[in-house]
Amino acid sequence: MLPAGLSAFPLTPLVDDVVDERAFAGLVERLAGAGVDSITALGSTGSYAYLTAGERARVARLAVEHAGSTPVIVGVGALRTSHVLEHVAGAEEAGAKGVLLAPMTYQPLTDDDVHALFRTVTESTDLPVVVYDNPGTTHFRFSTELYGRIAELPGIASIKIPGVPADPAAAREHVAAIRAVVPEHVTIGVSGDGMAAAGLAAGCEAWYSVIGGTLPQPALEITRAVGEGRIADALAASDRLTPLWDLFAEYGGSLRVVAAIAEHLGLVAPHCLPLPIQGLADDQRARVVEVVARLGLVG
Amino acid sequence: MLPAGLSAFPLTPLVDDVVDERAFAGLVERLAGAGVDSITALGSTGSYAYLTAGERARVARLAVEHAGSTPVIVGVGALRTSHVLEHVAGAEEAGAKGVLLAPMTYQPLTDDDVHALFRTVTESTDLPVVVYDNPGTTHFRFSTELYGRIAELPGIASIKIPGVPADPAAAREHVAAIRAVVPEHVTIGVSGDGMAAAGLAAGCEAWYSVIGGTLPQPALEITRAVGEGRIADALAASDRLTPLWDLFAEYGGSLRVVAAIAEHLGLVAPHCLPLPIQGLADDQRARVVEVVARLGLVG
Repeated sequence: MLPAGLSAFPLTPLVDDVVDERAFAGLVERLAGAGVDSITALGSTGSYAYLTAGERARVARLAVEHAGSTPVIVGVGALRTSHVLEHVAGAEEAGAKGVLLAPMTYQPLTDDDVHALFRTVTESTDLPVVVYDNPGTTHFRFSTELYGRIAELPGIASIKIPGVPADPAAAREHVAAIRAVVPEHVTIGVSGDGMAAAGLAAGCEAWYSVIGGTLPQPALEITRAVGEGRIADALAASDRLTPLWDLFAEYGGSLRVVAAIAEHLGLVAPHCLPLPIQGLADDQRARVVEVVARLGLVG
Repeated sequence: MLPAGLSAFPLTPLVDDVVDERAFAGLVERLAGAGVDSITALGSTGSYAYLTAGERARVARLAVEHAGSTPVIVGVGALRTSHVLEHVAGAEEAGAKGVLLAPMTYQPLTDDDVHALFRTVTESTDLPVVVYDNPGTTHFRFSTELYGRIAELPGIASIKIPGVPADPAAAREHVAAIRAVVPEHVTIGVSGDGMAAAGLAAGCEAWYSVIGGTLPQPALEITRAVGEGRIADALAASDRLTPLWDLFAEYGGSLRVVAAIAEHLGLVAPHCLPLPIQGLADDQRARVVEVVARLGLVG
């Protein structure tokens, strides 16, 4: 399995600090029903970093059980290498089709530390590994050269990059520079939902999508347009969602906004994020609801 | 107990991914024997963020058992509030005299998130709480105003600030600005070893010290000089260690350097840090050994 197309990142909702398994199963079934190309459980949006090994193994199993024929990728990141390996084992036992690994940090890591982490993981599993470059949460900065070194490891299947430059030519150049150091069989996937259409247009083969985990339809519309060569349609569909991308920027990232949308839709219970993350304030939630209603994304 | 004077932060050494309990006990006994004012187990230097709840409870117990009459503070930070509370319970059961809490982040936290975290913890324990401001690892930035809001919570005993400006007048102004919003009974402690003498000279009552956890004598010399009003002596003693502070800066922080010193001294086994942190390369270790020997800190 080479991750390509739309990979949707569902929330892992909590109720009173316990994983809401029924709501999670419902999110996964909704994504599979919508026809996303893969589901990435326990991504950053799925709060992997906050959950115990037991919770993560259980969530991985639920994801695979409820995804039907849709392949499931499972996030396995942790601060300690031995814990990563424990999560990899949990993903394997669950029947995951791949793992997503971000180099979480508390103490800053060197390039050699991160390379050795990916080498250890690829040596310990036959599952394809997605390299998860998410500097906003990990505070680790990959260089293009490090992408290349890691992508040479057997088992690396994809690189999830945090975004592309806004200018189309610069975006193509950025993706081409990564492609030049990364083997053919390794896909390049964009994240940062507001940049996704631009990233796909610039040559990324996948979109690792936060919004696609809660509102799959608009994400599929953009992904399919690019797949059919209708680049202008994809960019226009993304542009239409600018008020939503603006809320992501204004409210400190996509997570709190997407959780508020899922809570508003009744897909998850109120206050579904792990404390200390309190989620949006009431006035912020009202703005989110107004924006998604105005954009025709709900109801 | 109000944390004041020198609080020494020992490593939590590992061997083959298992806590080296004998070496840890030896580090604690060494610090107590040297006469440090308190020992903070499971600080950043003690790799708290990498250890399981079981490992942390065990390390807290060992610290208290081997510290004799020296008070032990225990680091309780975690990404999830419920896990913090679990670590607080472990510290209480161990007989800790205080807890140290850093607002660890994966998703960025708001000021309100962090305030609520400290409120929850202070409401759940009678132990004094040290607010741990360590932006280099947590990536959370406290404002002086937030120090003030949190310091008002009953149970807050101290604030560990990441450093002070190099200019003495600016340092005094910085500490005075914090003091102005923090109740009298809350101590202000400096970290960032290279800035500690300047911080103590500027009015900080405590030094939360990395180097003091492995080489207590030079840290005590600086702390005692300030305590006796010999500010110039303290600053001179710190200046003499500039080659060591420079290595901290050059090698990405104090942890890898201090681990290399402890390994060189045979206090801990080689490669004592949790993977993926590989520690210093051989040529870097050689420089560390050369510097500490030249400064007369070992042997």
